Amino acid sequence: MSAIHAPSLAATVGKRVPHILTLADLTVPQISRVLLHAHTQRRFSLPWLVPQFPPVPDAQKNKKSKAKQEPLRMPSQSLFNKSIALLFSKRSTRTRVSAETAALLLGGRALFLGREDIQIGVNESVRDSARVIGGMCQGIFARVGEDSEIEELARYSPVPVLSALSNLWHPTQVLADLLTLHDHAHLFDATLHPPSAKQRLAPGLAPLRPLTVAWVGDSTNILHDILVSFPRLGHSVRVATPGKEAYQCPEPVRKRLDGLGLTMGGEEEGKGAEHIVWTDDPRVAVKGADVVITDTWISMGQEEEKAQRLRDFAGYQVTEALCKEGGAKENWVFMHCLPRKAEEVDDEVFYGPRSLAFPESDNRKWTIMALFE
Amino acid sequence: MSAIHAPSLAATVGKRVPHILTLADLTVPQISRVLLHAHTQRRFSLPWLVPQFPPVPDAQKNKKSKAKQEPLRMPSQSLFNKSIALLFSKRSTRTRVSAETAALLLGGRALFLGREDIQIGVNESVRDSARVIGGMCQGIFARVGEDSEIEELARYSPVPVLSALSNLWHPTQVLADLLTLHDHAHLFDATLHPPSAKQRLAPGLAPLRPLTVAWVGDSTNILHDILVSFPRLGHSVRVATPGKEAYQCPEPVRKRLDGLGLTMGGEEEGKGAEHIVWTDDPRVAVKGADVVITDTWISMGQEEEKAQRLRDFAGYQVTEALCKEGGAKENWVFMHCLPRKAEEVDDEVFYGPRSLAFPESDNRKWTIMALFE
Amino acid sequence: MSAIHAPSLAATVGKRVPHILTLADLTVPQISRVLLHAHTQRRFSLPWLVPQFPPVPDAQKNKKSKAKQEPLRMPSQSLFNKSIALLFSKRSTRTRVSAETAALLLGGRALFLGREDIQIGVNESVRDSARVIGGMCQGIFARVGEDSEIEELARYSPVPVLSALSNLWHPTQVLADLLTLHDHAHLFDATLHPPSAKQRLAPGLAPLRPLTVAWVGDSTNILHDILVSFPRLGHSVRVATPGKEAYQCPEPVRKRLDGLGLTMGGEEEGKGAEHIVWTDDPRVAVKGADVVITDTWISMGQEEEKAQRLRDFAGYQVTEALCKEGGAKENWVFMHCLPRKAEEVDDEVFYGPRSLAFPESDNRKWTIMALFE
Repeated sequence: MSAIHAPSLAATVGKRVPHILTLADLTVPQISRVLLHAHTQRRFSLPWLVPQFPPVPDAQKNKKSKAKQEPLRMPSQSLFNKSIALLFSKRSTRTRVSAETAALLLGGRALFLGREDIQIGVNESVRDSARVIGGMCQGIFARVGEDSEIEELARYSPVPVLSALSNLWHPTQVLADLLTLHDHAHLFDATLHPPSAKQRLAPGLAPLRPLTVAWVGDSTNILHDILVSFPRLGHSVRVATPGKEAYQCPEPVRKRLDGLGLTMGGEEEGKGAEHIVWTDDPRVAVKGADVVITDTWISMGQEEEKAQRLRDFAGYQVTEALCKEGGAKENWVFMHCLPRKAEEVDDEVFYGPRSLAFPESDNRKWTIMALFE
Repeated sequence: MSAIHAPSLAATVGKRVPHILTLADLTVPQISRVLLHAHTQRRFSLPWLVPQFPPVPDAQKNKKSKAKQEPLRMPSQSLFNKSIALLFSKRSTRTRVSAETAALLLGGRALFLGREDIQIGVNESVRDSARVIGGMCQGIFARVGEDSEIEELARYSPVPVLSALSNLWHPTQVLADLLTLHDHAHLFDATLHPPSAKQRLAPGLAPLRPLTVAWVGDSTNILHDILVSFPRLGHSVRVATPGKEAYQCPEPVRKRLDGLGLTMGGEEEGKGAEHIVWTDDPRVAVKGADVVITDTWISMGQEEEKAQRLRDFAGYQVTEALCKEGGAKENWVFMHCLPRKAEEVDDEVFYGPRSLAFPESDNRKWTIMALFE
Repeated sequence: MSAIHAPSLAATVGKRVPHILTLADLTVPQISRVLLHAHTQRRFSLPWLVPQFPPVPDAQKNKKSKAKQEPLRMPSQSLFNKSIALLFSKRSTRTRVSAETAALLLGGRALFLGREDIQIGVNESVRDSARVIGGMCQGIFARVGEDSEIEELARYSPVPVLSALSNLWHPTQVLADLLTLHDHAHLFDATLHPPSAKQRLAPGLAPLRPLTVAWVGDSTNILHDILVSFPRLGHSVRVATPGKEAYQCPEPVRKRLDGLGLTMGGEEEGKGAEHIVWTDDPRVAVKGADVVITDTWISMGQEEEKAQRLRDFAGYQVTEALCKEGGAKENWVFMHCLPRKAEEVDDEVFYGPRSLAFPESDNRKWTIMALFE
């Protein structure tokens, strides 16, 4: 007996659905396009959100300039009438709020389904849930625990699945980090000037010179997406994690690095030829760094290991002293994906002038908006 | 002292509010109108949701046909500026997602209030909550436990209450089942051809010949709404449930059947004259069936009875072998409201070509959309 | 090293952000403007929500009057593309539903973040959460426990924070009470007539003569916002709470009263000169009252003190008998913010013709809508 289904909504979507579970799924030109698109979305959206933002008010003050006045443009309404399911088995403020506000600006709606609302795999198989939700929504933004779960979602979903974080990857955060670095390109290049408010709304991103980026902390999902993307964009990455096996780069991430032709080694081994330097000494990692990044040492679900982890990460707190001792560049900047705890970075750095943590967070919205499109 | 209230928003609504708690509340013409309206909503909505859906892209390829091109129509914006409260004391993926996306397409907003958000009857009486929510929203879509709760909501709500499932009824699911059967009418009638993509967007539903519909499983809310609707639409219904008292048709459902003039009996009793045949033998139920339907044997909250229930339902799993043995029609199709567990239907049938389970699920959206209007 | 941040979205907002944590933050003209604005929002919104509301249907029946017909106006779309975060650490039906439906009518979106979604201060400091959410949303509507929490939110938020209830204040509820009293001004003034449906949609609020308002119950957040607003609007307030220390006016509220030049005393002390009379005898409080208001004696979280509280509040239930005995005006009306329990007011009063409890609840929507703007 042959298949008797009349084609349904889901069936009309082609078989090859473009999922994004990690930045390793994107080519370098694709990453660049997403960043530029995020900037464009921001350009068109900000004047709606911040009325005092130029150029609207000036138009009424100065009639002569009226002719030159660019009209207020709408962000693309490409999600008009469309819904994106947010499948979140873990709590998240930043990811959720940025996704919901981004969908709104695109004219659509993000539908939050938390742990209380849906327990993927408990009352229904992941396969069936993926098919059902994919038949009603036009995209799935999934924050689940094990990477295998999101892979199974992607296998059966008739609509695109975008990872909002798994235990291995966190692509939308790392895109926000890249956008933030472009926004602050003038900090790394004496020939550039800080952009004026008007310039920040101009088309095009400032070019970013090759940077040395240091990671000091655990081998988390953020680091993994940095590893598969930053070196391909011309930046060198230096990582310090404690020496224990538990804090090393997981096998699936190593495989993706191999697949992309990216090499990893200690400081001496490759004599500088490796794309990624990996050490257990934070001071070695921050040597020559333009950017120092960290993340919490104790993620959700790891609270019971807290005491042991605090011992393992002794000496890993990012401070002015550590970076001076290790030889970071004089104007190094600090990044953190939030939420932040005091263990991994002190208040002086986190709330100080070097910190880009909050602009990073603001940029989550624009990169998610770009990917939704 | 006479009433001194200035009329409020709620008071402007007439006293006779049209609630729908079961399909027994609707006449046959009303049911037909809802199904046709659901199809119309789908016709207008699909081109917005699936851009590659015809006929939009063709318009740009073929300029000659441009004149004949139907313009892209909006689904009715009848919920513009309006809100519908979703009062859900039980978790639900399908019902919730279809309600929220349906409200969006109508230009309005579904406001999800789960068990964590509101505990009807706990912190405030059902009467007061019905009045308060009805004063702020323009409809209530309620998924509660006991049927008495939704009846009390309807008694005091100034705005229409639509049942999203109670322990006795599940009208929106059975409407989706009916729409799915119309979509696949060609499977039951050799004179009809499978519809092309274009035909599926044409006005009007394909006519459905009288079918024999078999239910194999527990006497659940889905079955009850099938019982009060299918026979009135010309279909005969054959039911198998285990012989124990707990699995028989509940008294309130029998009363509604009596009220509608529908008769029920064993195979021999009425010699085929009854609208509904009820047996404890699954093989008897599937005899001559065009459609075989089941539902989970273990609903939410019944997990502790699981072992006993599995014994009681021995032999009730829907399989190719059971239907062959019982004498179902050669081209029988399978339906299931989801979520599905493996006990009640095997993988061969559920994921096989006979299964309409997923198109059924997709159609939830359109029938709920039609009822919201 | 000077600050190196490129200005972010949040930074473009001026430093002086107008938060509203209590009505004590507003001047008398500001309160009046909010009430009038709420009425205007209601005028423009009701015809969309209740289609049978005049004047739309008449237009088609009577062609001659067509020319005079006012066109259907949209409520202001001032929240178009904007999001307001609802940070709720306590459950709430009324506040949440009114906020979400109000945002919809303004063209924007309220983003509900409940206790399950975000635990302010647990996984991230209040300071960091305020900055992050304020960088993505254009306003915060916060319902938290301790007043200190919302003050900390306001200190660090780059966008306006509006209190949706704290343990000390509840400004949006008391604004709804004031609007409800204006709507029913004819009850207190024999020269006014009850408004017709058409008049209720006319511009302008009916003037309210100075009233005597009695509070019988606990010293709750509602009472506190009544204390800092009603006397400034010309109404006298008479309060009865049990004599124990726990039920007296808290120190921070007294300070705000002092700051506003409002005096408080017993019946005899000021010989009628005080703005607020405070007693432990409900009969004294209701003397000459036009309005009697109460609230639950047992708020969320106080369930374990229930037995003790019931003893302390013996004789405080609002009944016809109590108000007759105390000497309330013959046409006294009853108000309650809901949810109501039977202890504090009997069914005769609560569901009787004196009760304005449900119109009060309906008005929550319009005052919140006015404040969102």
